[in-house]
Amino acid sequence: MKRWLDADCLPQLARGCAILGTGGGGDSSVGLMMSLQAIADYGPVPLLGLEELPDEALIMPCGGVGAPIVGIEKIEKGDEGARLRERLEAIWGRPVAALMSSEIGGTNGMMPIVWAAPMHLPVVDADCIGRAFPELQHSTLELAGISPSPGVMTDERGNLVEFRTISGVWLERVGRAATVAFGGASSSSEYTLTAGQARGAVVDKSISLALHIGGLVSGAAEDPVAALVDGLPAAQLVRGKVVDVERRLTQGFVRGSAVVEGLGPDHGRVVRLEIQNENLVALDGGEVLASVPDLITVLDSETANAIPTERLRYGQRVTVIGFPCAPVWRTPAGLALAGPRSFGYDFDYRPVEELARARL
Amino acid sequence: MKRWLDADCLPQLARGCAILGTGGGGDSSVGLMMSLQAIADYGPVPLLGLEELPDEALIMPCGGVGAPIVGIEKIEKGDEGARLRERLEAIWGRPVAALMSSEIGGTNGMMPIVWAAPMHLPVVDADCIGRAFPELQHSTLELAGISPSPGVMTDERGNLVEFRTISGVWLERVGRAATVAFGGASSSSEYTLTAGQARGAVVDKSISLALHIGGLVSGAAEDPVAALVDGLPAAQLVRGKVVDVERRLTQGFVRGSAVVEGLGPDHGRVVRLEIQNENLVALDGGEVLASVPDLITVLDSETANAIPTERLRYGQRVTVIGFPCAPVWRTPAGLALAGPRSFGYDFDYRPVEELARARL
Repeated sequence: MKRWLDADCLPQLARGCAILGTGGGGDSSVGLMMSLQAIADYGPVPLLGLEELPDEALIMPCGGVGAPIVGIEKIEKGDEGARLRERLEAIWGRPVAALMSSEIGGTNGMMPIVWAAPMHLPVVDADCIGRAFPELQHSTLELAGISPSPGVMTDERGNLVEFRTISGVWLERVGRAATVAFGGASSSSEYTLTAGQARGAVVDKSISLALHIGGLVSGAAEDPVAALVDGLPAAQLVRGKVVDVERRLTQGFVRGSAVVEGLGPDHGRVVRLEIQNENLVALDGGEVLASVPDLITVLDSETANAIPTERLRYGQRVTVIGFPCAPVWRTPAGLALAGPRSFGYDFDYRPVEELARARL
Repeated sequence: MKRWLDADCLPQLARGCAILGTGGGGDSSVGLMMSLQAIADYGPVPLLGLEELPDEALIMPCGGVGAPIVGIEKIEKGDEGARLRERLEAIWGRPVAALMSSEIGGTNGMMPIVWAAPMHLPVVDADCIGRAFPELQHSTLELAGISPSPGVMTDERGNLVEFRTISGVWLERVGRAATVAFGGASSSSEYTLTAGQARGAVVDKSISLALHIGGLVSGAAEDPVAALVDGLPAAQLVRGKVVDVERRLTQGFVRGSAVVEGLGPDHGRVVRLEIQNENLVALDGGEVLASVPDLITVLDSETANAIPTERLRYGQRVTVIGFPCAPVWRTPAGLALAGPRSFGYDFDYRPVEELARARL
């Protein structure tokens, strides 16, 4: 059965991507507007299961890089994806068969649709993280031993940079510097691979997952937050009010923290979220409620719409939820790459559902 | 007559390159040590006149990028030139015939020798500036309409970045950012061209010029500063003592200023040099003594050795000289690219010899 990403499903996809963005990945309302426009101009985009592609088919993982807050105002021109594809095809000497999200979270879950539409290429129902992460080496393809090089990066002016780095971490360092030089946001593709390499290496069916998550919220009869918490399932970390937001744009990232004061049954609790583009850690006093690589998402308590880190404001009524990451991130290699210690926190990872059970 | 760059001529070349470095281009003592070692290991390097190369011969302009002060401690590994060449040959699909200095000033006047020796390639008796300039677009090849792209940049670890930018200024912005990410220094090649394109576009015979200038100093019977001032010829801007140096490493550049207080006949004068890697402007009160694109070099008053900006210290007895840049920099296009206004100064360029005559 051929599936299409069309105007009908995009709002639901955007909601799901925002929730999987765990605060980052770019404001999904930007991705929604851009993908709706692309589909209005060029028609719906075919959604392909990874199993539908032949082993040797070349897949272009792609997305935006930079601080999400920049991406709201400095939006893509539209031909970035075509430029990345053209360069990759020149490097590999064969055509790109399909586009794939580098990360399903936020606008990055939708950028491949924006770029695929004018090129009449399909998008793969998978991504390289299963959420959003701040840095380029935070990829399941890094865990799978796929080379990040050559990575290609471009901007809305037509500049293009090609990276042949000795590691994913060096790609991140130099790519981040180039992104800052471009004004804080860029479009990029790295960890280029074949469908054969992708099988078992990427997070499969993540567009379907985002659509499912968006559907939990859109289809809820009365309490969308409860529907989401039950449907995911997720741990509800706190329900309350945003009372403090400290946020700065530095070295190409949004860094900072937000504090949520409990209301109702959570009265008296104070939960602090630490941010590097995404929500990294949720703390209640000295107690860890959830941490990377698990997902921590701030929801509007009324609508269950995810609030990205750059839109957190004093006074918002929010519910913070935590839910499990893709299983590969819970392996020793996954935790070494994206566990709390890799972000500078001095504690070991514990699964969010285990932490929630311990609090009962 | 075949000419060779060997251990005998390198000290003289280093002195000349330092004087043409106008404070920058990297500390030539580093380039001298590296080139002596390369020639000891691999033998002398042939020096070719541009006229000796066939039209279609591919020339690799190359050098170091970054704040000179970083290059003193973070030195090249040695295989950077080979990596740049390998990548350029893959891009162009044909062999590099010769290396050429991106800038004759400082260590960059000698880096092509360091890299050419192990590859047994010749070095062209020419460069792309005729002095040292801080930014990548400051090239006579920019004036000649040669594309800076694809530019290639590498570090001592083996990372390689390829730039396909819309302009030389964008190459500078992104290349500088990558250089900072690499730790403040990198090795690069840009404005790749053929010998046919180089004729009339580059500054010809600049290695010969550097050797000649070095010889003026080395061969002086008693007063090497006077020998240099007469031989160049140069305007002596002030003779005195360094009384203040303000210098900071920022955004990949050394920026700051130095103040020289006159001694002897210059008693009572206070000359200020403004620095961005190189000496940009010499001011006596509100009066401009010399400015970019003309060369301003600080000499040790005893030895006439050029003192690079990163080695300026309180108390040094120095003589500051100014001398004419290559003629192409005095054209309207040259001044637009590298005149005082392009560096943010609010005055028009006047040739250093004209300013000197006006003071008589």
